[in-house]
Amino acid sequence: MLQITKPYLLFLAEEQDETNAKTAMGLRDWAPEDCVGQWGLPGCTIDLGLPTLRPAEAYDRGARSLLVGVAPVGGAIPDSWLPALLEALDAGLDIVSGMHTRLVDIPVLRERAEALGRNLHDVRHAGRSFPIATGRKRSGKRLLTVGTDCALGKKYTALAITRELQRRGIKADFRATGQTGVMISGGGVAIDAVVADFIAGAAETLSPDNDADHWDVIEGQGSLFHPAYAGVTLGLLHGSQPDAFVLCHDPTRKTLSRYPDFPLPSLRHAVEVYLTMGRVTNRAIRCVGIALNTSRCTEEERARALAAARDETGLPAFDPLKDGVGAAVDLLETI
Amino acid sequence: MLQITKPYLLFLAEEQDETNAKTAMGLRDWAPEDCVGQWGLPGCTIDLGLPTLRPAEAYDRGARSLLVGVAPVGGAIPDSWLPALLEALDAGLDIVSGMHTRLVDIPVLRERAEALGRNLHDVRHAGRSFPIATGRKRSGKRLLTVGTDCALGKKYTALAITRELQRRGIKADFRATGQTGVMISGGGVAIDAVVADFIAGAAETLSPDNDADHWDVIEGQGSLFHPAYAGVTLGLLHGSQPDAFVLCHDPTRKTLSRYPDFPLPSLRHAVEVYLTMGRVTNRAIRCVGIALNTSRCTEEERARALAAARDETGLPAFDPLKDGVGAAVDLLETI
Repeated sequence: MLQITKPYLLFLAEEQDETNAKTAMGLRDWAPEDCVGQWGLPGCTIDLGLPTLRPAEAYDRGARSLLVGVAPVGGAIPDSWLPALLEALDAGLDIVSGMHTRLVDIPVLRERAEALGRNLHDVRHAGRSFPIATGRKRSGKRLLTVGTDCALGKKYTALAITRELQRRGIKADFRATGQTGVMISGGGVAIDAVVADFIAGAAETLSPDNDADHWDVIEGQGSLFHPAYAGVTLGLLHGSQPDAFVLCHDPTRKTLSRYPDFPLPSLRHAVEVYLTMGRVTNRAIRCVGIALNTSRCTEEERARALAAARDETGLPAFDPLKDGVGAAVDLLETI
Repeated sequence: MLQITKPYLLFLAEEQDETNAKTAMGLRDWAPEDCVGQWGLPGCTIDLGLPTLRPAEAYDRGARSLLVGVAPVGGAIPDSWLPALLEALDAGLDIVSGMHTRLVDIPVLRERAEALGRNLHDVRHAGRSFPIATGRKRSGKRLLTVGTDCALGKKYTALAITRELQRRGIKADFRATGQTGVMISGGGVAIDAVVADFIAGAAETLSPDNDADHWDVIEGQGSLFHPAYAGVTLGLLHGSQPDAFVLCHDPTRKTLSRYPDFPLPSLRHAVEVYLTMGRVTNRAIRCVGIALNTSRCTEEERARALAAARDETGLPAFDPLKDGVGAAVDLLETI
């Protein structure tokens, strides 16, 4: 199993788009005690509010791994990053990456790491295989966060629900399905890197049989309405067999992020489609709330979006970061 | 690119279940000129109607590859097959396999093949990568075969439609997405072996831009109603962007094959769900027919099933092997 040495220096490369920096932001928000500083290259406009440190300074302050905190589309590591990654190895840091391109497949990195005795952790490539899904109903209860699009709060919502359940004294575990979630929780499966035939099987493995009153809170991925990622979303939905789901949505988006020709579904349609597809492996699946990401809204827009979501779906609507997730967890307590 | 040396000796191992022998049956039916004989081990009850030959006899009759024609659940190659596979190599044959387990990862096979100068072809592992799907609308027309379950005629239906289009003088290509289809056509993508994030991207690559009046007829995989494989099905549906689909169904099944706790969807529900999900990447998607696999029906059952399918859906219903696919192709000519 993966053994990452913390704490981290968060590497931001030349990134200018916050959507691409969600790995770094997720670590800062959900594992702040593990983040010593940030490091951007010339051109980078992302500021996480952490001290800006070069690798040697970060090492002196305790950092032991450089964590690649950005993920450009396609998941490749550009050559322009290599001097920085080599500087990190030279300074004493391991490197942790969730990119599709493996660090260990880049000869100059592999050779330097071997020469210096550093570790290259490719979190997205767990290096293990999974069984074909059986569809067998497992004991314990499960919630999955789903979305109208990518990158709008599914991980945050799942983490917030896990914490609220635990705060109420209810047994609960967060189950990570993406590289950031795995980096935060120290376990899980990068589900989009699994061979297609085994997506649902990997999801079954991720949330095994548990106590009848235990909740697995599973981080969702992608969207059933996304032209590139819906297969991952559906396999995860089927293998998770969720008793409940929360639909995550950004009310300021009219089209899918990066896919301007693809309109977002209505909330009502999205809930219906997730219910229809989820019933394949759990007839009792229900939606327990709409999680709105209102980070780009004024207070007035926020209030209007929440009211509209409640009206349209008849379900609790909330921004997990601003309102908490108590309304959804209240419903979970009735399941 | 893959270069397979034909013709084949079809290897049936100890198989007793025809569903597991669909690779061999597909080759016999769709590429009979490439099949010199069959070879089962003790316990095998499958008979393809071909001459039973050992590898040395098959080689003398022209065979140049042993083709693994069965696929037990999970896709692993059992140790009990190894003496037979080694005998084939010794007799002068290459080995072609569509199993998840790679021939080249079995040391005894790899070493013998290297020593003798034979090739081990793992058709399921193309060894290439694919882009993330863009969702961009491509030129040309596309049909995808879909199903209520696995292993009920999606490949046969696609091959039959391709031939009927060509017979009518319409430009058409069969696009293979499974190992048998790839073995028959000599090209394509084993879509269930692609990394999950790239399913739809691989499907986009499989049917590139083409003439406006050209049909790509794409072999479907799995089912949106299958607890293990629906992710593959949805990614293939989205990346294919089909203008038309044919729903394949076995009227004698009440539950999914091997998943007795999972009832089949009604035809009407299945058509609606495929339309709903297909509209994500092609608003104009339509269903042009119901292909019933009536191979296990009496004539009376067959007639009743076809009439019931027509009544339930309002669409043409036919058994591609018995009735042809002209009714669906008539509708394609209107698109």
